[in-house]
Amino acid sequence: MASRDRVSATRLTTLILGADDIATLLRRVGPDALMDAMIDRLRRRYLDLDDVELSARDRDGFRYDKPALGLLEWMPTHEVGGPVVVKMVGYHPTNPVQRLLPSVIATTSMWDTETGHLVAIADSTLLTAIRTGAASALATDLLAPDAPLTLGVVGLGAQAVTQVHAVSRVRRIERIVAVDTDEAVAATFVRRLGFPEADVELAPPERALGIVGEVDVLCTCTSVDIGAGPVVGFVEPRPWLHVNAVGADFPGKTELPVELLRQAFVVPDVLSQCCAEGECQQLPTASIGPELAVLLRSPGAQAATQRERVTVYDSTGWAVQDAVALQLAVELAREHGLGTDVHLELLAPDPHDPYHRLVPPEEPT
Amino acid sequence: MASRDRVSATRLTTLILGADDIATLLRRVGPDALMDAMIDRLRRRYLDLDDVELSARDRDGFRYDKPALGLLEWMPTHEVGGPVVVKMVGYHPTNPVQRLLPSVIATTSMWDTETGHLVAIADSTLLTAIRTGAASALATDLLAPDAPLTLGVVGLGAQAVTQVHAVSRVRRIERIVAVDTDEAVAATFVRRLGFPEADVELAPPERALGIVGEVDVLCTCTSVDIGAGPVVGFVEPRPWLHVNAVGADFPGKTELPVELLRQAFVVPDVLSQCCAEGECQQLPTASIGPELAVLLRSPGAQAATQRERVTVYDSTGWAVQDAVALQLAVELAREHGLGTDVHLELLAPDPHDPYHRLVPPEEPT
Repeated sequence: MASRDRVSATRLTTLILGADDIATLLRRVGPDALMDAMIDRLRRRYLDLDDVELSARDRDGFRYDKPALGLLEWMPTHEVGGPVVVKMVGYHPTNPVQRLLPSVIATTSMWDTETGHLVAIADSTLLTAIRTGAASALATDLLAPDAPLTLGVVGLGAQAVTQVHAVSRVRRIERIVAVDTDEAVAATFVRRLGFPEADVELAPPERALGIVGEVDVLCTCTSVDIGAGPVVGFVEPRPWLHVNAVGADFPGKTELPVELLRQAFVVPDVLSQCCAEGECQQLPTASIGPELAVLLRSPGAQAATQRERVTVYDSTGWAVQDAVALQLAVELAREHGLGTDVHLELLAPDPHDPYHRLVPPEEPT
Repeated sequence: MASRDRVSATRLTTLILGADDIATLLRRVGPDALMDAMIDRLRRRYLDLDDVELSARDRDGFRYDKPALGLLEWMPTHEVGGPVVVKMVGYHPTNPVQRLLPSVIATTSMWDTETGHLVAIADSTLLTAIRTGAASALATDLLAPDAPLTLGVVGLGAQAVTQVHAVSRVRRIERIVAVDTDEAVAATFVRRLGFPEADVELAPPERALGIVGEVDVLCTCTSVDIGAGPVVGFVEPRPWLHVNAVGADFPGKTELPVELLRQAFVVPDVLSQCCAEGECQQLPTASIGPELAVLLRSPGAQAATQRERVTVYDSTGWAVQDAVALQLAVELAREHGLGTDVHLELLAPDPHDPYHRLVPPEEPT
């Protein structure tokens, strides 16, 4: 028994995947293969969702205004038979200017439900950007015309890079029309994007007024202020326009003109969340389409017919996507020998002796 | 700016305190000094609670029966101006027999509310046992006679060790009457306790029937089954008896006879939680006394008069105690150079470039 005990306690380490580990993973696997794997995993998870019992708790957290304005939120999710995954996100808007830190700092942790053991904890900045892109790729693949396309991008921050990259994995992009109100951000977009094959036109902010009418697929991923939307004008769209609306993530924050939404087939990622903080805030619930995961599982014909009409994917972010992202990252990290394994938890099977057994007489090797 | 940036990113590491680190901390600081510090910190936090705006979310979690029967719960707490602390507890009752692992595996994490940065994550098995003991010591010091005493202990697992130890830091214990239904657990109690100065009588299980009448302070810390309580009989108690009731932590699980509770001044740690899963389940709310933190802050005279009557501290565990425990452990670990600092989070101030800035051109040293 002592030897089995040692084996158990030695085996169950917690994998720490820091920001540098994730960056190394990205370089080793390559952005294309990583994005492809994320799209594939997400698609399979969505297709399987009927078969599992999913619990995703509503996002909850603490909001405060001292010592700094900020919030810390947790997003727990569990599928019966699978792990519990909790993403913790901090949002502190004064970080960049006052502390030279990012406003969003996030980690995701995963627990094994056979033992309760903490399997892994990882930085989730890049993972979040990639999973958000992957979800838009799924929506685009389902709802956009299956042909080379002109892509509009409004808002050229980090999400823009992974949104364009993700779409490029499911459609050939011939031309990109890119708009940001911040010239400094726009100036670095092409370098950050790193896809020399696409013809990128950096357009002035006023181009957003008519962009709906000149692209096949549009991605909005701005940080527009609450109540200050929409970020694009309403003109007659191409009849097959597909929009990935990524920026709205707060009550009162929206990016699209309501006229566009009214004529579109709107697919939310999480209906309740989209109605609270996504583009769906602008629509009566009855006029909103099925959630993306539900649509994916419906007979292919239904989705294909939507490619001939205006469609909007309303992306607010789903904890299930974070669970898929962390599981993929852990698998790839194991494959590539990345991350640090630590003995975090006390795993002696008989914890009756808090003061003496903590230090085992012989160290396991 | 680049150099300030590097400084920020280098400075903000996450402290990993594994089970071995906590054990080393215990040896370096010593159990007495560690328990004294925990009692002192807890007392000061309780006394200060009026001055801060405290938010402790109700315990929430996932319960499941496959792949194994178990639950994973989170307990988030925040005081305005202070950190957010979240304890995650897994309870998997088949662990010891089927996997040679403890049934309870827990970690506690702390976030800075100025930046949203994850400051530390620690194993919390020992910390939980010590903070639970420290809270009982506070209650005992407030409510038990100020004289050398005979201590009864029913249930001789890990909690019994830290409960007796904690009481020994606020009162001189002349004699201990110790009872457990499991002979194997009872047989190791004196060794685990490690206080040669106390006269410990290992009594047979039936002694629990009359133990209420023969001790000055009683601690119940059993793992009695739901609905199977009480674990002690009702006889006329000594008029000044003080009870620390620690075992009840689930709806239907109680340890004390209702007749004893009815004549006692009952002090819960968290009223709502005690009414749901502590001894207070057996009482109408109107007959329950103030919470321990409230009582501590009331004029000293009020508490002192209770030392002459029967009192019960109903301990179900409070997230605020876990926050105090982790803050103390992190401070002591820093002082003693223990734990591992990791760069967990992506802390570049401008995260616009998810694919290229992750690997900085020069590594900070």
